[in-house]
Amino acid sequence: MDASSFKTIQATVDAGVCTLTLNRPEVRNAMSLAMVNELLSALKQAETDTAVRVVVLRGAGGHFCAGGDISDMAQARMKLAQAQADGLLAGDTPDPVAAFNAQFGRLCLAYARSTLPIVTVLEGTVMGGGFGLACVSDVSLAAPSVAFRLPETALGVIPAQIAPFLVERIGYAEARRLAVTGAKVDAAQALTIRLVHEVAPDAAALEDALQRTIASIQACAPGAIATTKGLLARARIEPADTLIDEAAALFSRAVLSDEGQEGTSAFMQKRKPKWVPQAA
Amino acid sequence: MDASSFKTIQATVDAGVCTLTLNRPEVRNAMSLAMVNELLSALKQAETDTAVRVVVLRGAGGHFCAGGDISDMAQARMKLAQAQADGLLAGDTPDPVAAFNAQFGRLCLAYARSTLPIVTVLEGTVMGGGFGLACVSDVSLAAPSVAFRLPETALGVIPAQIAPFLVERIGYAEARRLAVTGAKVDAAQALTIRLVHEVAPDAAALEDALQRTIASIQACAPGAIATTKGLLARARIEPADTLIDEAAALFSRAVLSDEGQEGTSAFMQKRKPKWVPQAA
Amino acid sequence: MDASSFKTIQATVDAGVCTLTLNRPEVRNAMSLAMVNELLSALKQAETDTAVRVVVLRGAGGHFCAGGDISDMAQARMKLAQAQADGLLAGDTPDPVAAFNAQFGRLCLAYARSTLPIVTVLEGTVMGGGFGLACVSDVSLAAPSVAFRLPETALGVIPAQIAPFLVERIGYAEARRLAVTGAKVDAAQALTIRLVHEVAPDAAALEDALQRTIASIQACAPGAIATTKGLLARARIEPADTLIDEAAALFSRAVLSDEGQEGTSAFMQKRKPKWVPQAA
Repeated sequence: MDASSFKTIQATVDAGVCTLTLNRPEVRNAMSLAMVNELLSALKQAETDTAVRVVVLRGAGGHFCAGGDISDMAQARMKLAQAQADGLLAGDTPDPVAAFNAQFGRLCLAYARSTLPIVTVLEGTVMGGGFGLACVSDVSLAAPSVAFRLPETALGVIPAQIAPFLVERIGYAEARRLAVTGAKVDAAQALTIRLVHEVAPDAAALEDALQRTIASIQACAPGAIATTKGLLARARIEPADTLIDEAAALFSRAVLSDEGQEGTSAFMQKRKPKWVPQAA
Repeated sequence: MDASSFKTIQATVDAGVCTLTLNRPEVRNAMSLAMVNELLSALKQAETDTAVRVVVLRGAGGHFCAGGDISDMAQARMKLAQAQADGLLAGDTPDPVAAFNAQFGRLCLAYARSTLPIVTVLEGTVMGGGFGLACVSDVSLAAPSVAFRLPETALGVIPAQIAPFLVERIGYAEARRLAVTGAKVDAAQALTIRLVHEVAPDAAALEDALQRTIASIQACAPGAIATTKGLLARARIEPADTLIDEAAALFSRAVLSDEGQEGTSAFMQKRKPKWVPQAA
Repeated sequence: MDASSFKTIQATVDAGVCTLTLNRPEVRNAMSLAMVNELLSALKQAETDTAVRVVVLRGAGGHFCAGGDISDMAQARMKLAQAQADGLLAGDTPDPVAAFNAQFGRLCLAYARSTLPIVTVLEGTVMGGGFGLACVSDVSLAAPSVAFRLPETALGVIPAQIAPFLVERIGYAEARRLAVTGAKVDAAQALTIRLVHEVAPDAAALEDALQRTIASIQACAPGAIATTKGLLARARIEPADTLIDEAAALFSRAVLSDEGQEGTSAFMQKRKPKWVPQAA
């Protein structure tokens, strides 16, 4: 991970865990366009680094993320208004607001469909785009301070890129309920609608929950996790009967793979397979 | 709202809230074909009345709705049996039972895809078609007396138009469980499977929950809610990656809209935007 | 039911209830290819036997099912490795591992889409393929001893055929969480994510829950249940508006059917319809 170039996030890789920390605590880690791009770049690097087994996404300073950065948004908005006034948006002229928004959509999609397991640690403010990032993770652990909100519609705009991932995470009906009511969700309610999977009472318990989650992930073979995640994503929208033969071929390939052979050997020899960290 | 023509429902519009009350308490508000048509007409009027910000659907006399009206159904059934006996159903002759049923389906769809937020207040009997109406709302508030049931299969028929909205509301697996077991669901169980979102202990608390829900809806811009609901409906069946560009264009349009400009101005000026009722 | 030919399962039909018991307690009812084929054959027989109203699937000896049989799997694997070494898998040569796996997929699909209601009684180990069988049932009742697990990824392989039915049963997001963490789920957690619908405190209570479930199923007309299950499966992936006319035609057909006429007559005469067992 070439972390030295990042200005808005901190990135570390340690014992197979890539930790990405949104690091603009002065604005509760609001996402600038720079941060969106750095998060995309960091994920791409993590996915091509075979040492990385899991990505942990969290925020600095007691908050996860307050959403899109107001000043970047205002700048894009002014450019857009100017271009519109100049009559420049007729054809293929890029719309800076839509461009920023679409880039955030690509960020959500990249994390939602990552071959790597994504764990979010949610504290304090989880708002707008931050709410979206929570939705695209595989596992979400939270502090009691966690407070979700979709402020877009109260500001006259829309949670555009977040919408599909709300549906993926909490289902269509719950997403509709949140969308029409401004989506204020506290820790207990978040647990009920499975927006978070565990609420830890304090910082030590949250760290402990994170370590347990990481250990359970690292007990599983990385290639097998990646293939399974891909199958699940397809099963969300494709009928089950169309997937049987392909799933069988993927299974057979997994059995003959290095992972499949190591897994079987380890099972026979009553030892842990190589992909399990020694300390674990 | 031209409410004077309605015979089976009461319709009022007050402070942005359109309240539609199923009003046949002598049959626990069973839906006749007339009621189906009046509910469709009332929603259409509400959607074109810019003063209306939310639709509240409830029942008179302590019950929500007992389903399809037996006598209307029996009449359609007799006509159908007669037509069949006369050999008249071969070609394009309309089938009165199917016609009534399809009209109820159009009612469900109209509420399920309405641009307006729909809130149901559920008390006592919520059966058959009434169960369907509960499923198509964005938010459901309930009294402890609420008792859901799908009696169709016990009568040898099927919850035909309700089926898709059961799946939308509580998911495919839960819908299957209910369908094979007759779907008797009480208040506590309804909360567990998110058929209702809040159970209020008494009438005053239910009214209070309704007012809180309405206030949270009216804090959000109406156009933004409508656009978001449309996106969520598409996200239920379309893959997320196909929605990015369109969502970005919708976001950009929202930013430049009157709502987007008023929302930003209000935020800057630390005041409530115009769409929030003064009293709120 | 021609149960005499079955070697790996017990099959009985009594009072409309077909009970299939996985019966290899010495290996916690692990599924051999023979068992997969017998389960498929038993379901097909049950579906064509009009006396059968519900299928109950359970395991002998205090466990439900430990997944795929290791020795059958090892044999298929050796054949595959040999074929691969011989260069025989290039064209249309059948792959024995994929073939076994696909047959298990067809088993899952047959139960998931059965016209009959399927009830699983879950005790002890519910692992791998057994986890899949739990997911394809309409109703799952469990003992406190129930312990779910997807061990595939920890063995370097994948829960291939199970993936679609995980998504159908607990939703895409929960399925992702389980897939990346090895899916260890106990009774309380299973209830939370609706992997089971009721946990009974002891054996007598479990039997009682089963009898209550069977009685609620037998109160419903079998043809009506079958048609409703079919509609729900389509509604999971097809948009609601495309189903209105077809649902209306199915409704009309149900009204004129023997079941529809018997259901109406029984309702008018204040008696139970013929499909309800006398004792019930």
